Order: sequence, then structure tokens, then C-alpha cells
Amino acid sequence: MKELINVIDNALDKYLQIEYPEDIFKAMKYTLMLPGKRLRPVMCIETARILGCDIEKVMPAACAIEMLHVQSLIHDDLPCMDNDDFRRGKPSNHKVFGEANAVLAGDALLTYAPQLIIEKSTDLTSEQIVKILHEYTKFAGAYGLIAGQVVDIESEGGKLVKSAKETLDFIHLNKTAVLFRLAIKIGAIAADADKYTIEEFDNFATKFGLAFQIYDDIMDEISSFEELGKTVGKDKASDKLTYVSLYGLKTAKNKFNCLIQECCDIIDKYDSKIFNDILSRLAARINS
Amino acid sequence: MKELINVIDNALDKYLQIEYPEDIFKAMKYTLMLPGKRLRPVMCIETARILGCDIEKVMPAACAIEMLHVQSLIHDDLPCMDNDDFRRGKPSNHKVFGEANAVLAGDALLTYAPQLIIEKSTDLTSEQIVKILHEYTKFAGAYGLIAGQVVDIESEGGKLVKSAKETLDFIHLNKTAVLFRLAIKIGAIAADADKYTIEEFDNFATKFGLAFQIYDDIMDEISSFEELGKTVGKDKASDKLTYVSLYGLKTAKNKFNCLIQECCDIIDKYDSKIFNDILSRLAARINS
Repeated sequence: MKELINVIDNALDKYLQIEYPEDIFKAMKYTLMLPGKRLRPVMCIETARILGCDIEKVMPAACAIEMLHVQSLIHDDLPCMDNDDFRRGKPSNHKVFGEANAVLAGDALLTYAPQLIIEKSTDLTSEQIVKILHEYTKFAGAYGLIAGQVVDIESEGGKLVKSAKETLDFIHLNKTAVLFRLAIKIGAIAADADKYTIEEFDNFATKFGLAFQIYDDIMDEISSFEELGKTVGKDKASDKLTYVSLYGLKTAKNKFNCLIQECCDIIDKYDSKIFNDILSRLAARINS
Repeated sequence: MKELINVIDNALDKYLQIEYPEDIFKAMKYTLMLPGKRLRPVMCIETARILGCDIEKVMPAACAIEMLHVQSLIHDDLPCMDNDDFRRGKPSNHKVFGEANAVLAGDALLTYAPQLIIEKSTDLTSEQIVKILHEYTKFAGAYGLIAGQVVDIESEGGKLVKSAKETLDFIHLNKTAVLFRLAIKIGAIAADADKYTIEEFDNFATKFGLAFQIYDDIMDEISSFEELGKTVGKDKASDKLTYVSLYGLKTAKNKFNCLIQECCDIIDKYDSKIFNDILSRLAARINS
């Protein structure tokens, strides 16, 4: 796992070179290269590997997903959104480069990610690239990630169109699960998996994404800044709609454990050390 | 021309339906549907038509370019960028929907544009779609539009890495010409034009884009809010680097006229009423 993270870090560094005008590339690269778990590219690559696809073939698309993830973090941290001064233990993008550059760095990552897929995925067919870009655009935009972010912001302002439970599910599915679904689906498409297999992995990714968001909600409640590298306790302070605030800590933990178990049941037959590691580490942290 | 604008307006309206969460789709649609000249989609469609391609085949891509253009307007108007309260004569996006939604509406248009190309360009091959999306991502991001915007902002702050003249050329080429180049290149790709023809049209688009930016600089100097639908005289007030501020009004007009003449020379053999109309209208306004 650590080895794979290194490989991904090196690829990200190589794919994004500093050019003129330097400020924008530096801003893009700053948040991108902050040490992270690289969970989404790892899961993209591991899905592809399990299904018989070379790591080189899927690497550009895996890195593109990390770029999309980082784009969403940069924009989410902006003063007009979550107004967060820290990310991965360091000052957030707009604190270092200013708001204008942070907005533009996000925009640039959002378009460079698919550009990277097109330019570097030389072993994928045009049909595969179109399929991958279709998933990318669907999940990255108003039918995915952005829908989740909008409803999240609205719910913080107390504006609920649907019930609290439905709203929370919508946010979790779209704000968090969506990027895991995208990562794993792209891995499966790169491996030319059949429809049934893609659906099975998508089901796994959805459950994992929900579990991961509940994990995040719980950690915001019980963890420290040093441990997470970002401001904690913000959800509670802002009276935010979370799994913990809606169901309480105990039910949240139960739901998390059920989802992790369902994930294990699906992925079990593939004998993947990396997926098992990810699932057991999350579970250990919550149940310690 | 007016008829074609109507067809484009109807297509834009049809392609972008209001769904849940409504606020984001409303914000996207608000600026998109403000009455505009639709110059970029018109030129995309006219290029395709001249080169023998059906209008239906290129319509999704033409509308996608307008969406990209509108995305750049929404983000450019933000308080942290140009801080402009008006656009096309109406309050700008963040004045109506708030800053957070304006940032997200821009992001959503930036990803919906390529999604639209993938989903609705049913008569284009996968190879053509990949080519079009490649141009889209290159021109929309840090190697195009965003590079132009970054250097524009930096030059306003007096930060020049290159000479004033080189900087101005870079801004004009990347901030303005890029979207005309993209529009016309996509039209040519949809029509399956050969490399020589694509280059010829790209040359036309670059010259037109520069002329259009000089036109814009001159209009900011000599026009009124009522005429342009946006704040005027801002360039002068902010001591902005423009063709007028660097070369003076007379030289700017001369340069504009030369570029328009070069455009006429290139496009002449295609006998296009629409291109001739666009060129002569711009010229008439500047030389009246």
C-alpha cells in the first residue's frame, strides 16, 4: 500500500509540470502534492489490477480522480463555502495563493484531469476513453459531486427540500460516495470488465463511500486536529446535518460496521490485500 | 444570424433542464440564458456548415462552448476576481445566487459541457469526440483560458514576468482568442476537415479573437453601460493593461482594422454570409 502511494505520488508529480504562468501551476500542485492517503487512485488501480489490467494503463485516469478530489477540496475550503484555513495539516489553498488563484486552480484541475486521461492513456481505446470521460463528467458535476456540495451547504442553512434523512443520504451519496464510485468504475472500465462485474464493484463503492462518510462524521466528533490535519468539531459547532447528529454516535458506529461488513462480503472472493487493509484499518480506528 | 441565435437559445434551454437540487441548475441556467450574441456557437456551427457538416451533428458541441464561455464569465465576475455586479445588463450570478452557488455553478458548467458533447453527439465517432474533448480540455484550462485569466489578474496587480507587450499578447491570445479557436476547431473536427483546413480556420480564429479583444478594449473606453450591459470604464479606472492603454486609441483601431481585413482575406473564398456579417458589424461599430 505504501509502495503504491509512492508510485501515485511520483506519477502526480510527473504529470503536472510547472509552466508559465507559474502561479497557477504552483497553486494546483500545492494541494495536490500534500501528503495524503491517495485512497481513490489506490482503489481505482486495485480494481483494475484485480480485474486483470496493467497499472500503467489506468495510472493517468487514477491520477485524474485524485485531481478531481483535490479540486473539490480547494473549492470547498473557500471562504464563501466551508471557510476552512487548513487542509491535510497545512494552510488551505486560498490562504497561500489567495482566493482568485484558488478558484482558478480548482477550475484548472477540473479540466486538466480529463486532459490527462486523453493525453496519457495511450493503451486505452477511444471507446474506453469516451466511457471513462462520461463517468468523470457525470460524477464531477451537477449530477454528482456538486449536487452533494450544494445540498450540504443548503442543509447547513436549515433549508431542507426533502426530509433530514433523505437529505443526509443524498449528501453522503453525492458528496462522498461519488468519487469512490468513479474511481472503481474507471478501474473496471479500463480492465474491460463486463456489465455485471461493473455493477458489483459499483455496489461495493457505494457502500464503501457511505461507510467512509460516516467514518468522517464520527472522526470529526471524536478526533483531534493533529490526527486529522484539518479543523475538527466544526460539524457540531455549525449544527451540521451528519450521521452522528441525526442518529447519535452509537447508531452511526453500528451503521458503519454493517456497511464495512457488506463491503467485505462483496470483495472477499477477489482476495485483495489492499482492499482488505483499507477496510480493516477504517474499522479498527472506529472500534478502538 | 438572428434565426440561428434562436435555434441555439432553444437548444441551450432544452439541454439544461432544472433538476434537484434546483438551486444549482437555476444558477447555471440564469447566466447561460441571458440574451447574448452567441458568437462562439454561431461561429462553430457556421464553420461546420461551410465544411459540409449538418447543424444537428455539431449543435451539442457548439452549445458546450457557450457553457464554457458562461462558466468563465461567472467565475470572472466573482468578488475575488473582477468583482463585477453586472453581466449582460443583469445582476451577475453571485449577486443573485450568492458566491458559493456561483463558484459551484461555474464548476458544474465546466463539467456539464463535455458531458453534453458525449451524451448528445450521437452522429460523431468516438475518435471525433475524443479529439473534440481534447481541444476542450486544453483550451479551457491552465494551458488556455485560465492561463489568460491568471496573467490578466497578475498584470492588474503590476506583476509582469514578461514585457508589457508580450504579457498583453499572452492575455489576448489565451483569455479571448482561445474560445474562438476552440469553437472553430470543433466545427472543423465535426466536419472531418483535413489538417490544412483546420490550420487555416485556426489562423482565422486567432486573428478574429485578437480583433475581438481589441474591439472590447476600445468599447470599454468609448461605450456606455446601456450599450454593453456591463460596467464600463473599469479598465481605465483600474489602470489595466489593454491595447488602448498600451498603444493608444488610434493604433488600437488600426491594428483592429488590419486583423479584420486579414480575417476577410482568409474567409472570403467560403462565401459565408454569417462570417461576413460578424466581421462587417464589428468593423462598422469601431469605425463609425
